[in-house]
Amino acid sequence: MSLVPPSGGTTIGGVFMARNITPKDKDYSQWYLDVIKAAELADYAPVRGCMIIRPNGYAVWESIMSEMDRRFKETGHVNAYFPLLIPSSFLEKEKEHVEGFAPECAVVTHAGGEELEEPLVVRPTSETVIGYMYSKWVQSWRDLPLLINQWCNVMRWEMRPRLFLRTSEFLWQEGHTAHATRAEAMEETLKMLEVYRVFMEEILALPVIAGEKSEGERFPGADNTYTCEAMMSDRKALQAGTSHFLGQNFARAFDIKFQNPAGELEFAWTTSWGTSTRMIGAVVMAHSDDDGLILPPRLAPVKAVILPISTDTEKLEKEILPRAREIAAVLNRVLGPMAVQVDTDFHLRPGDRFFRHLQKGVPLRLELGEREMEAGRVRAVRRDNAERSDIPWDSVGQTVPELLETIQKALYGKAAAFREANTRHAASFDEMKTMLEDGGGFVTAFFGGDRSDEKAIKEATGATVRCFPLSDERRGTCFFTGKEDAKLAIFARAY
Amino acid sequence: MSLVPPSGGTTIGGVFMARNITPKDKDYSQWYLDVIKAAELADYAPVRGCMIIRPNGYAVWESIMSEMDRRFKETGHVNAYFPLLIPSSFLEKEKEHVEGFAPECAVVTHAGGEELEEPLVVRPTSETVIGYMYSKWVQSWRDLPLLINQWCNVMRWEMRPRLFLRTSEFLWQEGHTAHATRAEAMEETLKMLEVYRVFMEEILALPVIAGEKSEGERFPGADNTYTCEAMMSDRKALQAGTSHFLGQNFARAFDIKFQNPAGELEFAWTTSWGTSTRMIGAVVMAHSDDDGLILPPRLAPVKAVILPISTDTEKLEKEILPRAREIAAVLNRVLGPMAVQVDTDFHLRPGDRFFRHLQKGVPLRLELGEREMEAGRVRAVRRDNAERSDIPWDSVGQTVPELLETIQKALYGKAAAFREANTRHAASFDEMKTMLEDGGGFVTAFFGGDRSDEKAIKEATGATVRCFPLSDERRGTCFFTGKEDAKLAIFARAY
Repeated sequence: MSLVPPSGGTTIGGVFMARNITPKDKDYSQWYLDVIKAAELADYAPVRGCMIIRPNGYAVWESIMSEMDRRFKETGHVNAYFPLLIPSSFLEKEKEHVEGFAPECAVVTHAGGEELEEPLVVRPTSETVIGYMYSKWVQSWRDLPLLINQWCNVMRWEMRPRLFLRTSEFLWQEGHTAHATRAEAMEETLKMLEVYRVFMEEILALPVIAGEKSEGERFPGADNTYTCEAMMSDRKALQAGTSHFLGQNFARAFDIKFQNPAGELEFAWTTSWGTSTRMIGAVVMAHSDDDGLILPPRLAPVKAVILPISTDTEKLEKEILPRAREIAAVLNRVLGPMAVQVDTDFHLRPGDRFFRHLQKGVPLRLELGEREMEAGRVRAVRRDNAERSDIPWDSVGQTVPELLETIQKALYGKAAAFREANTRHAASFDEMKTMLEDGGGFVTAFFGGDRSDEKAIKEATGATVRCFPLSDERRGTCFFTGKEDAKLAIFARAY
Repeated sequence: MSLVPPSGGTTIGGVFMARNITPKDKDYSQWYLDVIKAAELADYAPVRGCMIIRPNGYAVWESIMSEMDRRFKETGHVNAYFPLLIPSSFLEKEKEHVEGFAPECAVVTHAGGEELEEPLVVRPTSETVIGYMYSKWVQSWRDLPLLINQWCNVMRWEMRPRLFLRTSEFLWQEGHTAHATRAEAMEETLKMLEVYRVFMEEILALPVIAGEKSEGERFPGADNTYTCEAMMSDRKALQAGTSHFLGQNFARAFDIKFQNPAGELEFAWTTSWGTSTRMIGAVVMAHSDDDGLILPPRLAPVKAVILPISTDTEKLEKEILPRAREIAAVLNRVLGPMAVQVDTDFHLRPGDRFFRHLQKGVPLRLELGEREMEAGRVRAVRRDNAERSDIPWDSVGQTVPELLETIQKALYGKAAAFREANTRHAASFDEMKTMLEDGGGFVTAFFGGDRSDEKAIKEATGATVRCFPLSDERRGTCFFTGKEDAKLAIFARAY
């Protein structure tokens, strides 16, 4: 069901009405940008590759931050802030790290009216400067573990920018921890991967596969990288968050040493883990439709909107609007202070008002017209499937939150079913190639190859190893090298 | 009362014990840095002039952000995110603005392995790039007001850095609003100044004087700047937050135009307002003492700490600790999930444990030893004045929050009394000079001079016009120029 906007794409009474959103089937890429534009989530900045996160988009990020931050703190982490600028010599201390990040760096060469002695890099990630500080803060085993997270902006120069998915600057969180033992650092790496997985499934309604990255897809400087991989509605994969076991690589590069209980000096074991505003792009692509954005209710800053509707202006202002405000007040006591809003854009036609909330992804629309006033109820319309129901006023406080939870589960269920329907197993390279050409999606296959095999597969198919799923321990013959006892991998084309 | 730490300043069992904090009277500057170091609030970064906000300091910033953000939202503002890098040509569009900020800018000249065509400035503030975006978002009077705030990092290269007070990078919030009329923009400017004033007084326990800045102290590009000025415990002034009425200066520079209801095009009226991590420096200097940090309870992330104490290890672990945890649980239900913590650093001597919490500014220490176990109470010790009291277990849930409020009020009262005791009125320049030499503090005087008079006064005394207080409308003869009907100003040396 698509409600075509009544106008072609300009400002109506101060409210911007997007042009028709390009249908998903016609041009997925353009559809994605149209959805973001119509929902006013983000805009390109005047600086190449950079993005402005508009209030509607930032409210989604605030919702993400508050949920994740609570989970980080419940698992014993604290927040801190490290500097934006990093001496370029720091980056060079870890060989793989500098090779991975140097080409993407933005570099400050002048400051305070003078040329700097040493160029400063705008942080692409903070392992180096945090490693440097940890070496000062850690002396004894009693100083460990250090469990610190940072919410900040980072910069990785981007030649092919795409809102939320690839921008030169983005917002993220980066956790950095140091431990006394290998086992404890590995436990942390997997614990935070699981925090990510549960958050993505519970809040973003995004089914993800938690798995280990292949050698070729590892974070530069890590011993192992773990990932949460999601399938978008065009069947491509998206890496939604990663957790890295850094071994002692950064501890050696930055001299993070501690005295163990026996009085001996040891290098610490470190981890890092990150998720970013990219998750907003994942939510857009996983759930939205040709009418615009669809947000899962637990993530949505505005969970429901009440629309008072009547052609009788006096009745609208004096009877319907006050009732709408009462209902909103009841719901906001249950759902949070700003969760339910009343639409008072009476200068717009009802169709335009409906359409705006559709485009913005508000999970539930509650219509209050003359008929509803007489019957003492509201008409609820679900954003995800346009299903209508009538809710008596005296039960909204219970029924609306239940309905929102139903929508949340339905979105997750739909995305999970879609992924399942688009995941196939390939026994040979020919089979894999056919599957990737015919529909794409996730292709599972036993894989025991190395970095050069990964490269050859990518060149031939455009697909990469997304991960070796942690939940599937089957082993078999590698489809590419013929090696025995290869782990099960997921291949896909990816964002 | 100073509890001298038992050791000289190294790590004891993994816990860093600061050296004696330099007494305030001996070297105020060093005292300030020692307090910050001992409380583990911040550290200098490896990049000149930059700062690392350590977990204890960042928790204070989180407390500030959450309180302020709630107040911004209650006054109708939303958050967004604008880019870190600004084309240098943008800065040049507003003449006074570029003159004020260009010398302090850090400049990115290379990115993605190439030299950029146009250098990019790391934002020192965001009026320009936000003005550019507003010109795209604003078409009709119905699009106004735009009420947007941003939490982010900014950079102003600093030659004489000082933790929290002057660092090359700092964290802040910057509000940017656009309005249809002059009156509405002026109302917003003063409304946000008042939000700042009330926040600073209620949460930071910091008495501030809200006033207008003189011409010489105005924000570059503003028609008027308003400020909240506080007195530190060395009697110097500190500007804790500012709110700017920008007139139509940025609207003209960036072409922010709207169609009014009559269909005519007009320039919008804009404001901006900001506060930063500098407020943490203000709190340190306003309240702390020679034992270290003192935090007002409403601001303090940890409001009370419970110390189980006994030489009988079994009793300590099996009886006292479980009881401490029960009391903490009761208090955390009232005060928030992390507000009250139990100290389990039993490997340290009791004196060391006391001292750590003193240094960190925890408002209330609750001791639970064998005597308290027998009597069914805790011994409460106030951080601000070392006053002791005994609280029965069954009334902690009520008495502790009350005691915290008492401390909050006492800190505010003490700072307000200190300011009053150190504010004097000067009728002549000689009087002012004597007062500034003899004790310093705030000197009020009628002042009707211009920018060059301000400069002359500063050169002779080191003092500047802090503000013309909004709450004092008296007028008189200017002490410096002899002009009649001059407004009352506050002069002081300032951070």
